Amino acid sequence: MGALDFIKGHGTGNDFVIVPDPGVAVDLTADLVRGLADRHRGIGGDGVIRVATTGALLDAGVIDAVPDGVSREDWFMDYRNADGSVAEMCGNGVRVFGHVLADLGLTQADRTVIGTRAGRRELQLHDVRGSAADVSVDMGAPVVLGESTATLAGVEYRGTGVDMGNPHLACVLAGLTPGRLASLPVGDMPEWDAGFFPDGVNLELVTPLSGDEVHMRVHERGVGETLSCGTGTVAAAVAALHDAGRREGQVTVHVPGGEVRVTVSPEGSELRGPSRLLFRGTVETTDLPFH
Amino acid sequence: MGALDFIKGHGTGNDFVIVPDPGVAVDLTADLVRGLADRHRGIGGDGVIRVATTGALLDAGVIDAVPDGVSREDWFMDYRNADGSVAEMCGNGVRVFGHVLADLGLTQADRTVIGTRAGRRELQLHDVRGSAADVSVDMGAPVVLGESTATLAGVEYRGTGVDMGNPHLACVLAGLTPGRLASLPVGDMPEWDAGFFPDGVNLELVTPLSGDEVHMRVHERGVGETLSCGTGTVAAAVAALHDAGRREGQVTVHVPGGEVRVTVSPEGSELRGPSRLLFRGTVETTDLPFH
Repeated sequence: MGALDFIKGHGTGNDFVIVPDPGVAVDLTADLVRGLADRHRGIGGDGVIRVATTGALLDAGVIDAVPDGVSREDWFMDYRNADGSVAEMCGNGVRVFGHVLADLGLTQADRTVIGTRAGRRELQLHDVRGSAADVSVDMGAPVVLGESTATLAGVEYRGTGVDMGNPHLACVLAGLTPGRLASLPVGDMPEWDAGFFPDGVNLELVTPLSGDEVHMRVHERGVGETLSCGTGTVAAAVAALHDAGRREGQVTVHVPGGEVRVTVSPEGSELRGPSRLLFRGTVETTDLPFH
Repeated sequence: MGALDFIKGHGTGNDFVIVPDPGVAVDLTADLVRGLADRHRGIGGDGVIRVATTGALLDAGVIDAVPDGVSREDWFMDYRNADGSVAEMCGNGVRVFGHVLADLGLTQADRTVIGTRAGRRELQLHDVRGSAADVSVDMGAPVVLGESTATLAGVEYRGTGVDMGNPHLACVLAGLTPGRLASLPVGDMPEWDAGFFPDGVNLELVTPLSGDEVHMRVHERGVGETLSCGTGTVAAAVAALHDAGRREGQVTVHVPGGEVRVTVSPEGSELRGPSRLLFRGTVETTDLPFH
């Protein structure tokens, strides 16, 4: 296909290959996504994000409809998982997406409405200084599903099921310190209640609220332990607030890849945190694997 | 430290961050190496390779001596593992190193002498076309250590111990097909004879010589399964030739990351194969982890 321009960025260690393609000139096949995301023979990333207008994606048949509250001229986050499949949303990716919009001069506003496959999202660019930015995004209303359990390396953990568009079990463990959390086998494959979570679950182990802070590690469904998970940090904040007898508040969530700030309110939730644009370049797509 | 220019390349899936630094102006600390090699928050690679003159590295105290047969003006491959430690040699990395020399106009010759921590090496640039090159390198004389065994997932494998500067056990398995090789649990932790391999071992499982071709998978000591291992492909070729009652010859070795051509002769061994320079860029070192 030829030369493809990209930007590599990450949000608390969730990393992405961003492809600016406003008019949808790139045929972003599953194989091209896999090649770009390949960590040894490509650029490497948890996902690939195309930056395009909603209208251009609709006209190209990449999306079926313009989400409610979004216009054809609004930017749309065309998110793909590293395996080439599409994904609805990514709480860390969307911050990097907002950073790229500002970096490329595609938005001048502090608040920007974008489209995603999960619907309309509003980004707030608090601070953009070159390769570093501080961005928040509305994450919708967490739905508390009730209590469930999961077993990890023979130990049963009880937690709060939270639906963030994807399923979470956030286990706030009494007396758990950040030091002991660091020693838990979060990379092991958990067992869960398949009646409660028929589509599998993302498992968060979380320290109790201390001041307004918690520490969390996450086992992502189908991936294993990751440095961060945007929806997981919101689920952890919801569970930690519940554990403290609260239904709303602000929580700083420390993850292995950094920290984010989660706000839970009756209206929904918001995720605020860093984005880094590490480098940018051009890759010859015929040099990538899977082409 | 500021902005750092780099090139990202790979040889059969062994990937490297190459830092052109002829006069040794960069303080390439272990933390900077770990940051550059970080696959989520850095550029990502199995290793980091500085391109510098032998004399400049000596003057800066990075190396202790000029290798025999190498001059101060010759280029030196300052190779670092992803964990920040130094390494003597890397058969796939050195091909990418040669490709970068040609790409940056640092050598015009088809044959180039370079220094490495394992001593003098001679590179031959057969074909350099932009992002793709075909490079060979002398790999020294393989030392056959005799027979030993290793156990993988409860199955014992018998093979030929080969010292390539690092220890290998290359097991040529009678009747093994490429298809069945693909199903073996090479990622599992092998057990080996600690009397025979006191410093651990790199384990290759290899199909018997068919024409002049073998297929191989490798479990690298301290790493796990990798897409390729330069010294491992030479060890596999030596073992496959031995298995066929031969002491020399040319063997095409297929690895998960591609294929290379190994020549074994009374004088030593040579590894020939591809290099790809995928992309290049500039990274702000303060944006990297571990700084």
